[in-house]
Amino acid sequence: MEINIERMLNDLTTIVNYTKTPGNGCTRFSYSNEDIQTREYLFSQMEKLGLSVKVDAIGNIRAKYGTMIEKPSVMIGSHIDTVENGGKYDGLTGVLAGLEVIRIIQEEKLTLSRPIELVIFAEEEGSNFGITMLGSKVLTGEYGLEDLKSIQNEHGDSVYEIAKNVGLEVENVEKDVLRKDEIDAMIELHIEQGAVLETNNKRIGVVQAIAGMKTFKVTLEGDSNHAGTTPMDLRKDPLVGASTIISHLQKTAKTAALSTTVVTVGKITCTPNMTNVIPQKVEFFVDVRDVEMKGIEFISNELDKQVDEISMDHALTGKIELIGASDSMKLSPRIVGLIEKKAEERNDSYMRMNSGAVHDAAMMTKKTDVGMIFIPSVAGKSHCPEEYTRKEDIKAGGDLLLHVVKALAVNNNEK
Amino acid sequence: MEINIERMLNDLTTIVNYTKTPGNGCTRFSYSNEDIQTREYLFSQMEKLGLSVKVDAIGNIRAKYGTMIEKPSVMIGSHIDTVENGGKYDGLTGVLAGLEVIRIIQEEKLTLSRPIELVIFAEEEGSNFGITMLGSKVLTGEYGLEDLKSIQNEHGDSVYEIAKNVGLEVENVEKDVLRKDEIDAMIELHIEQGAVLETNNKRIGVVQAIAGMKTFKVTLEGDSNHAGTTPMDLRKDPLVGASTIISHLQKTAKTAALSTTVVTVGKITCTPNMTNVIPQKVEFFVDVRDVEMKGIEFISNELDKQVDEISMDHALTGKIELIGASDSMKLSPRIVGLIEKKAEERNDSYMRMNSGAVHDAAMMTKKTDVGMIFIPSVAGKSHCPEEYTRKEDIKAGGDLLLHVVKALAVNNNEK
Repeated sequence: MEINIERMLNDLTTIVNYTKTPGNGCTRFSYSNEDIQTREYLFSQMEKLGLSVKVDAIGNIRAKYGTMIEKPSVMIGSHIDTVENGGKYDGLTGVLAGLEVIRIIQEEKLTLSRPIELVIFAEEEGSNFGITMLGSKVLTGEYGLEDLKSIQNEHGDSVYEIAKNVGLEVENVEKDVLRKDEIDAMIELHIEQGAVLETNNKRIGVVQAIAGMKTFKVTLEGDSNHAGTTPMDLRKDPLVGASTIISHLQKTAKTAALSTTVVTVGKITCTPNMTNVIPQKVEFFVDVRDVEMKGIEFISNELDKQVDEISMDHALTGKIELIGASDSMKLSPRIVGLIEKKAEERNDSYMRMNSGAVHDAAMMTKKTDVGMIFIPSVAGKSHCPEEYTRKEDIKAGGDLLLHVVKALAVNNNEK
Repeated sequence: MEINIERMLNDLTTIVNYTKTPGNGCTRFSYSNEDIQTREYLFSQMEKLGLSVKVDAIGNIRAKYGTMIEKPSVMIGSHIDTVENGGKYDGLTGVLAGLEVIRIIQEEKLTLSRPIELVIFAEEEGSNFGITMLGSKVLTGEYGLEDLKSIQNEHGDSVYEIAKNVGLEVENVEKDVLRKDEIDAMIELHIEQGAVLETNNKRIGVVQAIAGMKTFKVTLEGDSNHAGTTPMDLRKDPLVGASTIISHLQKTAKTAALSTTVVTVGKITCTPNMTNVIPQKVEFFVDVRDVEMKGIEFISNELDKQVDEISMDHALTGKIELIGASDSMKLSPRIVGLIEKKAEERNDSYMRMNSGAVHDAAMMTKKTDVGMIFIPSVAGKSHCPEEYTRKEDIKAGGDLLLHVVKALAVNNNEK
């Protein structure tokens, strides 16, 4: 039994055309027109399968297949949103593999022992509000209605307003929180987004732990002035301060932190940002991740010390805000073991590994037994237009997911 | 004899309201609606005085008072454009002082020995095209028609297109180049934009030299990737590279360069600028100035070395473009001496000084004898909403300008 890879890639080709940046990667933010087009296409496919579809308060889609509604379901899926100028495969591959698995199980007329539920998480990338995995955080009860009213995008619009605006019943947020007895297990198929599988020449990654992360917003305020008339020793230049901190953090992460620790400054804004004006204010974001929480703590402390010290040296006002955090997570030995067993049986070339990226699956560990399947990213590239995963690897990952789901949700005597 | 400071400040109050950013400083770019409103107001004032007004190919305004048209005139004036969220006094003070000087000379019915010409330079700040003093560079023949067709703003519109679009006869650019025999002397009154006068408790700066400058655009290109899955030692992060260079340049300018050398990175853009994505590309601008050209050369060489070295260390592609340059200039001993003599006679508290900022006056040294009068900027602040110059200092500067112009352009027996 295997998935129909051509049909799945046809879905993918349709959806990657729903992008705000044609010719320059996929830009499909949650709640955008491109997101709405994607949802309409997916709803039409779900309707063909007769799935019972529910869209929750924040826009997560939960679509159930199977009649034994009282039983905890096996949940599969991922997300459909992207970063700006992102790739074709991140998130979307897991959603379409889940859809394809349900199609095959229906075509093969297998009798279920429990429902299968396709899940599509909203706003995983944090592209709108700077908070990653917002959909799965809301589904698992980490954020409530008041949070959604206070979290804003860069135009000052709250999650609440944006969600309302696209027709979501956002007041239902507490009612829609997932109950533990609704789900038996959750499995997310995802591209690796790194080069571990490629380097090790493996087709399947059986994920055993997911890195935790913290995201900080750092604001340095100095004293804007004319670039020609202020002597060097009278300057309060926040871009010089920010540069010193960014350069130092990279050196520290490379030499003093754990080998698994990574730290990234991907976003910086400078005000007023004119060539002949000493900046008044610089904001930048520090993204630190590790499977070991002590690696994250080490860099967080270093950032604290640096901002204090550099603010003092350059007469700046420094502020650090923690704007996002997730703990590192061990995945379920039951599900990890099952994925490994099925990969073994199918002669997949596989390896156990950690995930450096955080995923919605990490949030779900609070509610149920979770596993993840990784498939290779060519050259480890992701979150960019060059992101690519080979057809044969998508097929292998989809087939493995199909057999894991069969083991969990199909009647014993049909296995 | 003295200027009417209330009338001059009334002009100022009218014009500072022509801003794109009410409540957040003056934003009045050349060729914008705010610039057009300002010009209309000034034209109405010039008409009252019966000045003979000419607008040249690039939008410089030249308005002559006096009948002895064949004689070289005494030129006074400055610019009316601002940086984004700039101040009320930069440029505008010199233009309005020039206008007020002509009003007084007319009201006092003084007989001229040569014409007085009010000049208002276009696009001094480089806010549209990133090239400072574009108006005076065109007036003095440094840029020709082909240059204006190739220099573009950030939307890809050329100077030629923008100038055409606001109705300027830009084809006349070569014909409008200033001839040496048109002008006898040029004096620019300007706010200091630094804190030298304030620190020395002086009201008038008699400028003897203007700093030269070079502006470089530095582009570093790396390899965009997911912030969580790319180990530190496999990264090609252009923001880490840029930060290291910016931090190093500041240290070098402070410790190894001349005491007069200043270097500023005021503008930086990061692509794609997302918190969880390693940047693909970073562009930043380096503005270096000094009254000694060897200070500028020292930092320019240091920048070359740094970009080479850091690009190598971080596996980046680095590029440096020189996008603007002006030599340091000694001002005319004849005019500097006259300004000093008049300040002495009037019991102004004054000092000789250099200008760290470049001004249109520096361009004019190629064509005529040039002097500059500085008046204090409170706390040295400029190019920001807090820019402020006291009424009594504007009055002192305007009165001094009036007496210098009288000495140069009024019939001997009326002096």
